[in-house]
Amino acid sequence: MNLETKRAHFTSPLYLESGRILEPYDIVYETYGKLNDAKDNVVLICHALSGSHHAAGKYVGDRKAGWWDGLIGDGKAIDTSKYFVISSNVIGSCFGSTGPMSGQYPSNEPYRLKFPVVTIKDMVKAQMHLLSKLGIHKLEAIVGGSMGGMQALQFAVDYPNIAKSVIALATTYATRPWTIAFNKVAVEAIRRDPRFKNGNYDKDDFKEHGLDGLAIGRIAGHISYLSPHSMDEKFGRNYVPTDGLFELFGRYEVERYMEYNTSNFAKIFDPLSYLYIVKAINTFNLSRGYESLHDAISRIRADVHLISFKGDMLFFPEEMAHLAKMLKRNNQPHSYTEIDSDYGHDAFLVELDKFEDIIKGVLK
Amino acid sequence: MNLETKRAHFTSPLYLESGRILEPYDIVYETYGKLNDAKDNVVLICHALSGSHHAAGKYVGDRKAGWWDGLIGDGKAIDTSKYFVISSNVIGSCFGSTGPMSGQYPSNEPYRLKFPVVTIKDMVKAQMHLLSKLGIHKLEAIVGGSMGGMQALQFAVDYPNIAKSVIALATTYATRPWTIAFNKVAVEAIRRDPRFKNGNYDKDDFKEHGLDGLAIGRIAGHISYLSPHSMDEKFGRNYVPTDGLFELFGRYEVERYMEYNTSNFAKIFDPLSYLYIVKAINTFNLSRGYESLHDAISRIRADVHLISFKGDMLFFPEEMAHLAKMLKRNNQPHSYTEIDSDYGHDAFLVELDKFEDIIKGVLK
Repeated sequence: MNLETKRAHFTSPLYLESGRILEPYDIVYETYGKLNDAKDNVVLICHALSGSHHAAGKYVGDRKAGWWDGLIGDGKAIDTSKYFVISSNVIGSCFGSTGPMSGQYPSNEPYRLKFPVVTIKDMVKAQMHLLSKLGIHKLEAIVGGSMGGMQALQFAVDYPNIAKSVIALATTYATRPWTIAFNKVAVEAIRRDPRFKNGNYDKDDFKEHGLDGLAIGRIAGHISYLSPHSMDEKFGRNYVPTDGLFELFGRYEVERYMEYNTSNFAKIFDPLSYLYIVKAINTFNLSRGYESLHDAISRIRADVHLISFKGDMLFFPEEMAHLAKMLKRNNQPHSYTEIDSDYGHDAFLVELDKFEDIIKGVLK
Repeated sequence: MNLETKRAHFTSPLYLESGRILEPYDIVYETYGKLNDAKDNVVLICHALSGSHHAAGKYVGDRKAGWWDGLIGDGKAIDTSKYFVISSNVIGSCFGSTGPMSGQYPSNEPYRLKFPVVTIKDMVKAQMHLLSKLGIHKLEAIVGGSMGGMQALQFAVDYPNIAKSVIALATTYATRPWTIAFNKVAVEAIRRDPRFKNGNYDKDDFKEHGLDGLAIGRIAGHISYLSPHSMDEKFGRNYVPTDGLFELFGRYEVERYMEYNTSNFAKIFDPLSYLYIVKAINTFNLSRGYESLHDAISRIRADVHLISFKGDMLFFPEEMAHLAKMLKRNNQPHSYTEIDSDYGHDAFLVELDKFEDIIKGVLK
């Protein structure tokens, strides 16, 4: 598999849904496989809240491969010996594309809270510009889970002719208050953290000890990504052996897991990016800008493949099922699969064997 | 209804599960109705994490009545014209019973982090001492939801002869990692809040502006008390009209609700008490101290009435159902009802009409 990281620089303005303009801006992306001469063997991958463009493969020295490495590669479900796969980092991210800590033109001062709110629609529009720049006008498929699935669906609605197929996993058509509430933990924890300094922090201060507010918010995130059953499996009621059961701050294994993972996350993820991406998730509503959800859905020309997970505690199967029902009523080509899984929301990153055949089938 | 608040002072030591001793200690409690001469018309009410002994009635000037006022009163399901109802504040609480901010004997210095970890078993033992002091040796019923239900079950196991019936709602037999994880948000948010000062805060500092860590932890709490459906009903995707949709800190109604409720809560609830009570919930395991859960359950002599709520996202119906199955296998008198409800965990405080007939039936 041919793994490359690239950066596209755009000097033309990106008109945002808010009415504001982002100019200039960069998009960082990875590609796997080879673009054919007709430029029509392309699959686009969209990432989730904490993800990046690094979806597959390893760089020299890496211990862990990209987040969907089990799915993307030579001979895998998204076969890089056949397809040219593009995985693009969203605007707003802290992993290379223009985000709140990027320098403004021409002062090069970081935007911080002056960064405009971006939406899923804006993220998708920026990726359309990337595709144009690459001379790609037709996609075999767009694939994404969670916030990646939101992007896939938004592509299908806003740009009906771009993709043959869209595969959206563990996502929704409009973010419910339940999910917004989970995100609210992070928003408040970050805002109220004195080290956040209303966005005027020194990034280097977080290298050793990440922002506590982000770590705390991330605990709520991890709860929503797992499920009661997956936690029973992973941790049970096991207690950290060196901690006394009757010490106030003695911990169950699940607590240690939360501490460890979230504290590490806070060292590498930028809190402002987190706030901006969470805002994009909260404001996601496929029908915004259209007369109704029905109106939005009716624009779709791609085959839509919806995959939900029974035990998903963040985006519930009923949400995908509702979308499937609307597509059915409209006689639009689609499939809907509810995967039998207890794992929780993260199943789309973990239980690949349960849905890779669906993706294989679409890409055949 | 005859509402009274009383305080019992105990100079004899309370031997805790940890091996530590609490001495002296106070229990604050309310009573409703009149104790008969035989002292055998008593119903004991146990409260939940954020609750207090104030379960019913109003004091002069109160706008809101106690937390189960719809259930407790003359002619109500727990009929105070017939029963003498006792609602006791747990040890560890900040509402009057001895807790971490109580003065130690003889210095009167608050315990703070020197307060011993207390468990559900300890809370129950303290209440047994209260009953003894009142000369009450037989209860008609013990009733509680959530942490109150844990106490009710613990009573039934540890003191098999004390109650004729036990009614436990929206609770479990051993706290699962899922619930511990929700509590972990509060634990970390409180600990990491600089104003917490490792427990050495000045209480008065929180009167105007409560501890942010407690407010943040409480957001996670409120998520677990509601459900996706109850949030759809309560808030939908409504946006606070004065906030711009494309302002980073503009809010959905669900966000405003979380901010408002949790910030108020943090002004009245003590963060150390929160940590200690959460610890009691986390360590709750009906089988601790016995050979097995089966061994613990087998001790029960009371009729056990278990009530779960279908949409409870904190303690799932399967947990109560498991307990019911064990009681059935043992041929122990019990009933189990899964209430059809979308409301979430808080249903035991809100949807009284859905289960008051069960309680009435038990107390007939």
